[in-house]
Amino acid sequence: MCKVELENVSIGGYNIHITYHNDGYLVGTRRKEFIVEREQFLSVYRHSLAHILAKAVIELYGKDVQYAIGPQIEDGAYYDFVLPEGKSISEKDFTTIENKMREILKRKENWTRKEVTKEEALEIFKDQKYKTELIKDLPEGETITVYYTGDDYVDLCRGPHVDNSQELLSAAFKIHATSMAYWRGDEHNDRMQRIYFYAYPSKDELKEHIHFIEEAKERDHKKIGKQLELFMFDETAPGMPYWLPRGVKLYQALMTYSREVQRRHGYHEIMAPLINNKKLWLISGHWAHYLNNMFIVPGVDGYTKADAKISDVVENLNDDKSPLKDVLIEKDSVIYNRENMSTMAAKPMNCPNAMKVYQRKQRSYKELPLRYSEYDVLHRKEKSGQMNGLLRVQEFRQDDDHTFVMESQIKAEIADIISIADEIYSTFGVTYRAELSTRPDDFMGDIEVWNRAEQALREILDERYGKGGYEVNEGDGAFYGPKIDLQIKDAMGREWQCGTVQLDFQLPHNFGLTYIAPDGSEQMPVVIHRAIYGSIERFIGVIIENFKGDFPFWLSPYQVGIVPIRTEHNEYAEKVADLLEKAGIRAEVDYTDNNMKNKIKQFKIYHDPYIIVLGDKEAAENTVSINIRGNRKLNDVPLDTFIKICTKMNTERSLELIDSLEGLK
Amino acid sequence: MCKVELENVSIGGYNIHITYHNDGYLVGTRRKEFIVEREQFLSVYRHSLAHILAKAVIELYGKDVQYAIGPQIEDGAYYDFVLPEGKSISEKDFTTIENKMREILKRKENWTRKEVTKEEALEIFKDQKYKTELIKDLPEGETITVYYTGDDYVDLCRGPHVDNSQELLSAAFKIHATSMAYWRGDEHNDRMQRIYFYAYPSKDELKEHIHFIEEAKERDHKKIGKQLELFMFDETAPGMPYWLPRGVKLYQALMTYSREVQRRHGYHEIMAPLINNKKLWLISGHWAHYLNNMFIVPGVDGYTKADAKISDVVENLNDDKSPLKDVLIEKDSVIYNRENMSTMAAKPMNCPNAMKVYQRKQRSYKELPLRYSEYDVLHRKEKSGQMNGLLRVQEFRQDDDHTFVMESQIKAEIADIISIADEIYSTFGVTYRAELSTRPDDFMGDIEVWNRAEQALREILDERYGKGGYEVNEGDGAFYGPKIDLQIKDAMGREWQCGTVQLDFQLPHNFGLTYIAPDGSEQMPVVIHRAIYGSIERFIGVIIENFKGDFPFWLSPYQVGIVPIRTEHNEYAEKVADLLEKAGIRAEVDYTDNNMKNKIKQFKIYHDPYIIVLGDKEAAENTVSINIRGNRKLNDVPLDTFIKICTKMNTERSLELIDSLEGLK
Repeated sequence: MCKVELENVSIGGYNIHITYHNDGYLVGTRRKEFIVEREQFLSVYRHSLAHILAKAVIELYGKDVQYAIGPQIEDGAYYDFVLPEGKSISEKDFTTIENKMREILKRKENWTRKEVTKEEALEIFKDQKYKTELIKDLPEGETITVYYTGDDYVDLCRGPHVDNSQELLSAAFKIHATSMAYWRGDEHNDRMQRIYFYAYPSKDELKEHIHFIEEAKERDHKKIGKQLELFMFDETAPGMPYWLPRGVKLYQALMTYSREVQRRHGYHEIMAPLINNKKLWLISGHWAHYLNNMFIVPGVDGYTKADAKISDVVENLNDDKSPLKDVLIEKDSVIYNRENMSTMAAKPMNCPNAMKVYQRKQRSYKELPLRYSEYDVLHRKEKSGQMNGLLRVQEFRQDDDHTFVMESQIKAEIADIISIADEIYSTFGVTYRAELSTRPDDFMGDIEVWNRAEQALREILDERYGKGGYEVNEGDGAFYGPKIDLQIKDAMGREWQCGTVQLDFQLPHNFGLTYIAPDGSEQMPVVIHRAIYGSIERFIGVIIENFKGDFPFWLSPYQVGIVPIRTEHNEYAEKVADLLEKAGIRAEVDYTDNNMKNKIKQFKIYHDPYIIVLGDKEAAENTVSINIRGNRKLNDVPLDTFIKICTKMNTERSLELIDSLEGLK
Repeated sequence: MCKVELENVSIGGYNIHITYHNDGYLVGTRRKEFIVEREQFLSVYRHSLAHILAKAVIELYGKDVQYAIGPQIEDGAYYDFVLPEGKSISEKDFTTIENKMREILKRKENWTRKEVTKEEALEIFKDQKYKTELIKDLPEGETITVYYTGDDYVDLCRGPHVDNSQELLSAAFKIHATSMAYWRGDEHNDRMQRIYFYAYPSKDELKEHIHFIEEAKERDHKKIGKQLELFMFDETAPGMPYWLPRGVKLYQALMTYSREVQRRHGYHEIMAPLINNKKLWLISGHWAHYLNNMFIVPGVDGYTKADAKISDVVENLNDDKSPLKDVLIEKDSVIYNRENMSTMAAKPMNCPNAMKVYQRKQRSYKELPLRYSEYDVLHRKEKSGQMNGLLRVQEFRQDDDHTFVMESQIKAEIADIISIADEIYSTFGVTYRAELSTRPDDFMGDIEVWNRAEQALREILDERYGKGGYEVNEGDGAFYGPKIDLQIKDAMGREWQCGTVQLDFQLPHNFGLTYIAPDGSEQMPVVIHRAIYGSIERFIGVIIENFKGDFPFWLSPYQVGIVPIRTEHNEYAEKVADLLEKAGIRAEVDYTDNNMKNKIKQFKIYHDPYIIVLGDKEAAENTVSINIRGNRKLNDVPLDTFIKICTKMNTERSLELIDSLEGLK
């Protein structure tokens, strides 16, 4: 057992009590180690508080309370209970329970760890149905530990925990939710009541977390997406977003920008079939490694993944008429018809098609680097519980690319990709950090090639971010090549892995790709997979939350909402809209007979960056009066100046809205 | 029996002998009647010549020749033979056979029609294996007709035919191909040799046809597509084109243009899931009416179209373990698992998704007409024999739209759609004609609504094309609404159905769509489906052939090929390319050390409209020298003038290339 110690350490700016079981705390200052240590500390802390919660509930609701399990979660812990018949806990009880917990802590009771036998454990928990079940499931002869908090509360637990409740006295916790749960998560089992609490080492951290949660709710892309009418989902296509007219404009602004940058960097866009035959997936390796995530499309003859168990097959083997006679049993006991080579699958990735396009003719070193970008629609199966708005979908596009290079070109090419990432992420005003993942044990290919490639990547990363300015995950690369992941940080400080740059020594091998080298020999190119946005759907989810729906001008679905004050101003409004449209500015006019206030209100609901109001004065003087998002105003702006302002923000893809005429002529 | 008559009639400008069996020929002058009469005439003509071919082959290759069938086809006829062992016909024999045919015609033999019994027929053809088989298949008691040409040749035939071979003396025919065929088209049957000939009423028509065929070969979009590197196919995705970099540029130019026109006309683009649950297809009716053309995607549980016959199911009904126990047998004996509601299918049409987007909230008459355009990727299964380059594919996009209107808005909306068609087709320099299809017998909905809708369509068509300026196919509309098809005519005079405008009273009903009318009542909108390009893939196939790869400037994959004469001119070339790119002009530079001639040659292979050559003089004077497609030249054009020229053609989407500086400043 590790020793439990108490110490004052500053983490994230707060002085907190640390209780931990390892010797040496924060030995390094590197981020990952910090996180690991902090996690260990928080685990003890939250886990101990969960015991206090259970003790409080028992004291409040009586000895008949059945307490099941109380694990730590990301921002605190929960505990599952079956309360005595007729009793239940609701929001109004949270304070009472919290007060009881504080009262218990003030008792400064000792925590006692005891090792017991299975029989002893069963005796201790003889009135606790679920603990008994847990104990019975433990292997014979295993040491069982229980923890006492004072004399009157005991829990089945591996620990570690605090030594005395006083260590938790400065704890900042808050019960924030209750929900229904099933014993062991199985809907056939007993229903339980789950009580959640947040727990942090200090009040400031707790306050900050509660603020974070509220802010995250405010920024929830599903909520904003609905309000701005960007996208919707329907039960007939789970995880596959419908893009509404306003969402399409945002989507296309992203695509146009990506295409523009990539064109400048010498990328060539291709489009390829969305549904491809099994033959392709067998070559690429997806059939062997990715099948469970693919939407299978049975071939013309109707053959497909069989709805059968191996026992069915065995039983039918000698029945000539059985459709189960001629089958192939693959890994994981998935059964396929032996002749189903006409089976197809929706593509989960663009790579194999890009290989086919490379392969269509003999290539020369003169053509390299050859960059094939691709925005085709991809499909990946997800479990329904894992889908989450735009952040985890089953249908999406990537700003994908496959670049074919000679080994000697790797370094320059990766440097160019990093410069694209710099440009694109900075346009969104987000910072990012890089992680390099290197050769795993089960790597394929030539170790010398790996070494040279990794060396090239390190050199680029050193040059760009400085030594130690990026993380290295040794041995975490894919078996087919090392990779660099790019994590962006949003306005709330949350990190999202968006960009990725992966070297691939395997696919060129599988497809037998070659090029004629300067010396006339046939050589195999290296493939670089890369994406900057990553999934465009997910990226939109991230930037909706990042900007809280207040998109930069260039990205806004409509950039200008036009409000004619009365219907007699509709004519001028139409003229203005026309001029804006011709200048490539997305404008919408409210021609209805609603009053001005309501028209402005609706455009504000949509977060239109500029709402221009047109009345007698504006029509007479050929001007516009602008309500700028964020309650700023600019009145009587000449129409041509206004168009200049908009065009400037479009051209420069400015992050901020222009709110003064200074510097504009 | 109709009477056979001989007459001199002028068809298509040629005086020809007409032999026909109907009373009254060319009674009307309307196009369709003309076509029908001409078809009847050509049928007799070509069919009779097929007999002459068979007679010639027998005379040349001996009595042992087995002659099978000799039907008319689009531009002539063919006959299938089994020649005596060791003999075969190759291209060098064609003239001999043609001469023999002419010799036979000159005999001016009478053609005699005889009605015979089955027994008599079997006796007549006792040495002809295939005729015997055909006769045996005829129902008992049916009158069998045979035709004698002279005394020594007889064929089993319904006729009608000419009375005497002299009627065919002016015939213009040409044997042009031979191929292998199977008796009755079944590969398990005997192999035969098929001989094809063209046949026309006059030499001029034949000549014109041969020219047409050669021209069509020259223009074949598959050939040009390969040369210009626009697209490719791979066996792992039959009928699903890969778009290569140059093809993507062409594709996007078309999309951009379509989007621009539609935006101007108040269309709102949406994007929707490509794979949707069976539940959606059940509502839309696709599951009942279109299933065989859909790519089915089994649900998470792996259920799908069963690979089983009904007899299998019956045999397994009482076997609890059989996967065939719990199935659903649908129309056409297609078997599905009863519980496969999680089955999905790739969408063959956008309509159901557009209905879902309409349905997402309560609509008001103020929102109508509401136009949802959609360019999503569609999938439709085709039999492999029916696929043909881009003209018939399994994966494609449409410039699709679904507009929701009140009944009173139908006329104005259709008029607007026709004006879009006018604009778009004229940009491609093609003419088109409209066909109206009206209420069929099995129509659904209110006959009064149909009448009013058809009346509105007729009024628009009358206004736009004049009375009689369009065709009416009475009773040919879909059961859900009347429609207007738009047939464009390409540079070779071939017609292609591209555009379509369909009213739909059914889908709004299936989805229960409503809007709140001005009087506060709930009403059902009418849906208008429409496309102008139709399938974009097919449209590209058509315009490749129409332009023979010489696309207008705005549509060309690369618009300017840049040839630095020597590598020291690369710098100026880069500057020019940069300026062009910034002006939105697609330019490519050949930076290699190839010589100027070869560089120009390669760009000519790609049909780049302008190839500019940059040498000392151009670099010094900031000019370009242009090789204009079609061997025209413009030397020493100032760079800014050149950019003006290109921009003008892009903005105006000109059909012709500018080849002089007149009118430009």
